[in-house]
Amino acid sequence: ATHKLLLLAGDGIGPEVMAEVKRVAQWLEQAGLASFAIEEDLVGGCAYDAHGAAISEDAMVRAKAADAILLGAVGGPKWADVPYEARPEAGLLRLRKDLQLFANLRPAICYPALADASSLKREVVEGLDLLIVRELTGGVYFGEPKTITDLGNGQKRAIDTQVYDTYEIERIAAVAFELARTRRNKVTSAEKHNVMRSGVLWKQVVTDLHARAYKDVELEHALADSLAMQLVRWPKQYDVIVTDNLFGDILSDLAAMATGSLGMLPSASLGAVDAATGKRAALYEPVHGSAPDIAGKGVANPIAMIGSLAMALRYSFNEGAVADRIEQAIAGVLASGKRTGDIAAPGMETIGTEAMGKAIIAE
Amino acid sequence: ATHKLLLLAGDGIGPEVMAEVKRVAQWLEQAGLASFAIEEDLVGGCAYDAHGAAISEDAMVRAKAADAILLGAVGGPKWADVPYEARPEAGLLRLRKDLQLFANLRPAICYPALADASSLKREVVEGLDLLIVRELTGGVYFGEPKTITDLGNGQKRAIDTQVYDTYEIERIAAVAFELARTRRNKVTSAEKHNVMRSGVLWKQVVTDLHARAYKDVELEHALADSLAMQLVRWPKQYDVIVTDNLFGDILSDLAAMATGSLGMLPSASLGAVDAATGKRAALYEPVHGSAPDIAGKGVANPIAMIGSLAMALRYSFNEGAVADRIEQAIAGVLASGKRTGDIAAPGMETIGTEAMGKAIIAE
Ligand SMILES: CC(C)[C@H](C(=O)O)[C@@H](O)C(=O)O
Ligand SMILES: CC(C)[C@H](C(=O)O)[C@@H](O)C(=O)O
Repeated sequence: ATHKLLLLAGDGIGPEVMAEVKRVAQWLEQAGLASFAIEEDLVGGCAYDAHGAAISEDAMVRAKAADAILLGAVGGPKWADVPYEARPEAGLLRLRKDLQLFANLRPAICYPALADASSLKREVVEGLDLLIVRELTGGVYFGEPKTITDLGNGQKRAIDTQVYDTYEIERIAAVAFELARTRRNKVTSAEKHNVMRSGVLWKQVVTDLHARAYKDVELEHALADSLAMQLVRWPKQYDVIVTDNLFGDILSDLAAMATGSLGMLPSASLGAVDAATGKRAALYEPVHGSAPDIAGKGVANPIAMIGSLAMALRYSFNEGAVADRIEQAIAGVLASGKRTGDIAAPGMETIGTEAMGKAIIAE
Repeated sequence: ATHKLLLLAGDGIGPEVMAEVKRVAQWLEQAGLASFAIEEDLVGGCAYDAHGAAISEDAMVRAKAADAILLGAVGGPKWADVPYEARPEAGLLRLRKDLQLFANLRPAICYPALADASSLKREVVEGLDLLIVRELTGGVYFGEPKTITDLGNGQKRAIDTQVYDTYEIERIAAVAFELARTRRNKVTSAEKHNVMRSGVLWKQVVTDLHARAYKDVELEHALADSLAMQLVRWPKQYDVIVTDNLFGDILSDLAAMATGSLGMLPSASLGAVDAATGKRAALYEPVHGSAPDIAGKGVANPIAMIGSLAMALRYSFNEGAVADRIEQAIAGVLASGKRTGDIAAPGMETIGTEAMGKAIIAE
């Protein structure tokens, strides 16, 4: 089958790392391993520059028609002063919301060859393999009211609203329990039920669903602040962590950084499976950001972006064998000692974005 | 002067570590170094057991009359099912709110003798000394509405509201800038302005105040998720970090754990200085929690609690020299190799709570 892939390279290092995805996709086609119908469009600051909005209506139509979307990164200091509604991040947030990509899967894996790149001790991160399942279409990211009001006398009031309904918590918890069954069978659910009403409901819904349908999976509850601590102290105690949109934002970045493999990690944002077609909307992107400080220099690590293509092949296109080949090629390149600057030990020789892309193809 | 001190030992290991504070206070009195009028009361689960509320009206009256409050810790699994309004944490939250303790100072210091106790590499934490200034009376902790509503059909909706007014942001930012001037003169302000309206206002108010009154202090802005990463990667880049109630909760726990000195760290929660009396309401407590797993065993580390007394002597009682003596005694005990279990390297001999309190007095 030909897979309809939409590439949204975005800002900063996005276009550079996406160029390597195109190189790999082209190679897969030439080798007869996969067939793609690739479209490209803008998202983020570059879309604002072109259209005055962080994503155009046209791009939204294409996004809805695609089998999968690959996104590079959005944002940068250049757009610090654009109107709030048009800021680069608004393009990504609209994709998540309009396509109902409620399940954000963020694996935090420590590549053995990179265990020394972490600021954590080797024995703390070696062999680490956990998965953060973050709710992505609810919570304080989208709740209303979300306003700034002028109170007069130089005073303003800002309001953000965290809203969660039972069904939103249930569907993300179900994703976490299902994934745990394919892994080490343990789920840790994080919230702040001691301070937040949404935390109380979160804990209750997860507990109820567990008792009803997933008693075979080990379930543990943690407060988000305490989990942040434990992720630094001894992260290997976790298998699957399920949490809300805002805590997931922080905890997944934290876990990724702890592995020492930040430039290596892809993520998947998935919608519900359509009962009629069996399809689900899906967007794949690196966990790292647009890294404006190194953009345009040809030194960014393309592995998280290429790994995002592998994730798309596995989860959206049912091409697990091809995904395996890409991931093995990445492991092989690392084992051979090739490194971009972000994952190189001090004194090690480094290669650029393009050379890394080509090395992966050569493998 | 005789200092009016209210001791609220609370739950879990609270009473054990507070007993050592009493021992130290008694010794200071006998040595003629300070004079205290000590009262004691309940807070948290033990207050609920006694009065049906996490803090009694009586205790609130005493709290308002005290020169300073020392609090142990609140909470534990025993009270998992008490009504939301009466949960142990509600006592602490009421103290913070009613006494308007808006400025929570959480130093994260790596004690040289303990650098190896961290899960982070020695070179990453050695010499680390940063201060988190957390807003403590606003944000999602107290904003209304804060509700769970039954929507029928087995569906509920939970709402929490993050609210910040200009003056709340301004007064906490001023505390951070003032403290930075007494340290390394740098402030990092953390929010999520790319997603939250309160983040937009936060960033703007901090920027304006800086331009108006603190141009001599270096100011840097960070996104909360990215700051969490950086706190793990290279925490020594920070001096003072100022952030809201919820981000501060997570980031301060994270920073404390990173130092490897969690059982060592006190914190101060301060109100505004009363123009007429020159006094400010103040509560001092360890950064660690009630640790129900080790409660009652006599093994908890009392240093954070005794350090909280030292902080009270310095900030509330203007007895800096006495505070210095306590802190030097703590450093001396550590240097002599005495350790409670939480800060001992594997294989090291350990001592209990009481022995540690006595060792500090002996020093
Ligand atoms: C870019 C930003 C809006 C986004 C978020 O906060 O979700 C990013 O930090 C992420 O984690 O994907
Ligand atoms: C006990 C709890 C309410 C509290 C908080 O969330 O503020 C604690 O975690 C803290 O950081 O002091």
